[in-house]
Amino acid sequence: MIKKILIANRGEIAVRIIRACKELGIEAVAVYSQADKDALHVQIADEAYCIGPQSSKESYLNLTNIVSVAKLTNCNAIHPGYGFLAENADFAELCHDCNIIFIGPTSQAISKMGTKDVARETMREAGVPVVPGSKGIVESDDEAIALAVKIGFPIIIKATAGGGGKGIRIAKNEEELIKGMAITQQEAATAFGNPGVYIEKYIEDFRHVEVQVLADNFGSTIHLGERDCTIQRRLQKLVEESPSPKLSSELREDMGAAAVKAAKAVQYTGAGTVEFIFDYRENKYYFMEMNTRIQVEHPVTELVTGVDLIKEQILIASGQPLSYSQKDISFSGCAIECRINAENPYKNFMPAPGKIEMYLPPGGFGVRVDSAVYQGYSIPPYYDSMIAKLIVYGQNREEAIDRMKRALSEYVIEGVPTTIPFHLKLFNHPSFKSNEYNTKFLELNNIMEEE
Amino acid sequence: MIKKILIANRGEIAVRIIRACKELGIEAVAVYSQADKDALHVQIADEAYCIGPQSSKESYLNLTNIVSVAKLTNCNAIHPGYGFLAENADFAELCHDCNIIFIGPTSQAISKMGTKDVARETMREAGVPVVPGSKGIVESDDEAIALAVKIGFPIIIKATAGGGGKGIRIAKNEEELIKGMAITQQEAATAFGNPGVYIEKYIEDFRHVEVQVLADNFGSTIHLGERDCTIQRRLQKLVEESPSPKLSSELREDMGAAAVKAAKAVQYTGAGTVEFIFDYRENKYYFMEMNTRIQVEHPVTELVTGVDLIKEQILIASGQPLSYSQKDISFSGCAIECRINAENPYKNFMPAPGKIEMYLPPGGFGVRVDSAVYQGYSIPPYYDSMIAKLIVYGQNREEAIDRMKRALSEYVIEGVPTTIPFHLKLFNHPSFKSNEYNTKFLELNNIMEEE
Repeated sequence: MIKKILIANRGEIAVRIIRACKELGIEAVAVYSQADKDALHVQIADEAYCIGPQSSKESYLNLTNIVSVAKLTNCNAIHPGYGFLAENADFAELCHDCNIIFIGPTSQAISKMGTKDVARETMREAGVPVVPGSKGIVESDDEAIALAVKIGFPIIIKATAGGGGKGIRIAKNEEELIKGMAITQQEAATAFGNPGVYIEKYIEDFRHVEVQVLADNFGSTIHLGERDCTIQRRLQKLVEESPSPKLSSELREDMGAAAVKAAKAVQYTGAGTVEFIFDYRENKYYFMEMNTRIQVEHPVTELVTGVDLIKEQILIASGQPLSYSQKDISFSGCAIECRINAENPYKNFMPAPGKIEMYLPPGGFGVRVDSAVYQGYSIPPYYDSMIAKLIVYGQNREEAIDRMKRALSEYVIEGVPTTIPFHLKLFNHPSFKSNEYNTKFLELNNIMEEE
Repeated sequence: MIKKILIANRGEIAVRIIRACKELGIEAVAVYSQADKDALHVQIADEAYCIGPQSSKESYLNLTNIVSVAKLTNCNAIHPGYGFLAENADFAELCHDCNIIFIGPTSQAISKMGTKDVARETMREAGVPVVPGSKGIVESDDEAIALAVKIGFPIIIKATAGGGGKGIRIAKNEEELIKGMAITQQEAATAFGNPGVYIEKYIEDFRHVEVQVLADNFGSTIHLGERDCTIQRRLQKLVEESPSPKLSSELREDMGAAAVKAAKAVQYTGAGTVEFIFDYRENKYYFMEMNTRIQVEHPVTELVTGVDLIKEQILIASGQPLSYSQKDISFSGCAIECRINAENPYKNFMPAPGKIEMYLPPGGFGVRVDSAVYQGYSIPPYYDSMIAKLIVYGQNREEAIDRMKRALSEYVIEGVPTTIPFHLKLFNHPSFKSNEYNTKFLELNNIMEEE
């Protein structure tokens, strides 16, 4: 049984995990960089230890320091949150070697899904739909051109070691393809230490729809429905909702089953997310990638299912069977999440860390705030610029949108610019309300300048 | 249709109502006393007007000033909240006469339920179980003694114009009965201007269980399950939960049907609560009284049903039919509410208004905060001492209790003493956890002094 957990993260996700620990009666140990000594996760944890200077590399990415603190404080488990070490197979392996439970899947599952071309092949073999494209790494220009002619332009070139929107390039013709492959290979070699690229048909007009899965160590794998994360800016998600307003109930069931298949294909355990490209014009979906960790947007799933995903992660890692079978999972209402960042939406979303002079989060029915800030707190410039996740629940999408607008309008954050004005514009935008948009919505619409 | 609402209240319920207005796209006009000029409800309303000095009598109870503001600002409806004018039949009548929609039942329904002996007789005639006792007002000592001998001591003497725990006295024998009636009559004449009293068998060992109802103007009346409000101090509720952990599903259905019958017996419209004495040893319940308004504890019902009760009040008052039929109402999980007051639980719950120097409400999954305070706000000494209602949701009672303890422990309120230490003791108390308590729990257990 897990009795004491080290949380190898910061910010709102560290707070989120500490909350789950408290509710489960498990002790929570926080770690922090020198820049984070006044952070909320440090204040609410049972114990907290400084693990290095402000630089992530020397603190939150410092495997050995983190594992040392875990051993010294008698933690028998580590929760990595998201980002930082969450999808680092070496870290999972190191935990295992040190007899510490890594709250997440095995390093093998992380590796398989982290290597994009391997993941793609594994999915293809498991019968999960993948976008037409190369089998594994493309070795030569000739191979690429032959394939591109067969599946048709535009083509997307992807670094196998890439992710999170990095190591990607689009080619509209043969010339762009050859040139693009060369540049992407070079970049990938530098950035990820792996020059391998593969190619796929580029689907331009799609919705980003992902499925949450949970799997225990006894062979049970279930899904908890989908999240629509189509509202993105430079491949960064800004708004997420569940259910997807674009998915038919047949396709929802189908996609859920495909996600379970995907997880089973890598003997997945814990909480994970299978991301799909949803080509809504053709009513087809394709495997994009699997995130082998908890995601930022997990709360929308929690609000429509009632399931506490962090608690389930911990219980699964403790060796317990899933608390739910597929038939126990039911869906009710609609949930939407906004990522509220310390960024200036009027100045191209420039990050603007600084001191929060006044702070009062919204409250009332159907409003959830996951945050690690407080009045008087200074957001350090070294990490992400997130202030809070604002999540609302409504009986239906219309109520959820109205509630989100209400909650955004009463959120008091003074001292730093925030993305609240952007979100208010978005929820008042006719295309958002009428559900007529794809992942390029913010690229095609400068909503900050619209009336 | 209602386009603009004046909220004739203050504090968290004024904020709650303004939030519902915003979500419905209705303009909200706040009113405030001179002592409340910095209050949150004033800040978040679309417009706000001072209606008098700090004294409630000259401000929040000032019928004519309130109606004048409504007329001058073109409000076509007034929401009274709870307390103040919420159950004042004259105010409902005045609104009606001034062509303003009173968001609540008719003055006739308010009167019938507000006059306790009339309510009791109406319920008896409608077939709703009432505690054995007198038919209407007791006119003489002889009549009282004859009846008491028949139903057995102890007997409770109640002023027909009383309520909220006032105008009540218990008699264990004939002598106490005669003496108690005389004192209660005298007190009631002074306090309520109506000396009438009636008597009932005094049930000592019971749970306070109440049923939420909604009724429209087209004859539809539904119930939304019950709330258990057994944890009380001097007849003031401190903690409420839904569902009641003491009620069988058969009795739950039965009690729901009885509440609907009670509402129909007075042609009730809007949101109301039928309170019952639940004699769990005998598995019997009796009508206690009906509150013809929204109640403080309404959020627990909202969390287990998903229904926004304030919105329903507004829609019903707008002349719309109920959004739900009885079969649309389903119940899921467990919700608990704590009333967090600026009182010192170590000093006999002495009210302690003052300035809130630091404030950070809890957040995360399953946590709702309904409050009207902020960091730097001074709680005025003229009204109630409520700081916030903290409401949690869990898949079951155990999770809700664990979540409540977690949320209480992270609630930051500095500058004034609060009842949070009391609540933490309560939720750790074995009797609360094991569901073994009645309305006398806090009278019999000084939990602040227990280890």
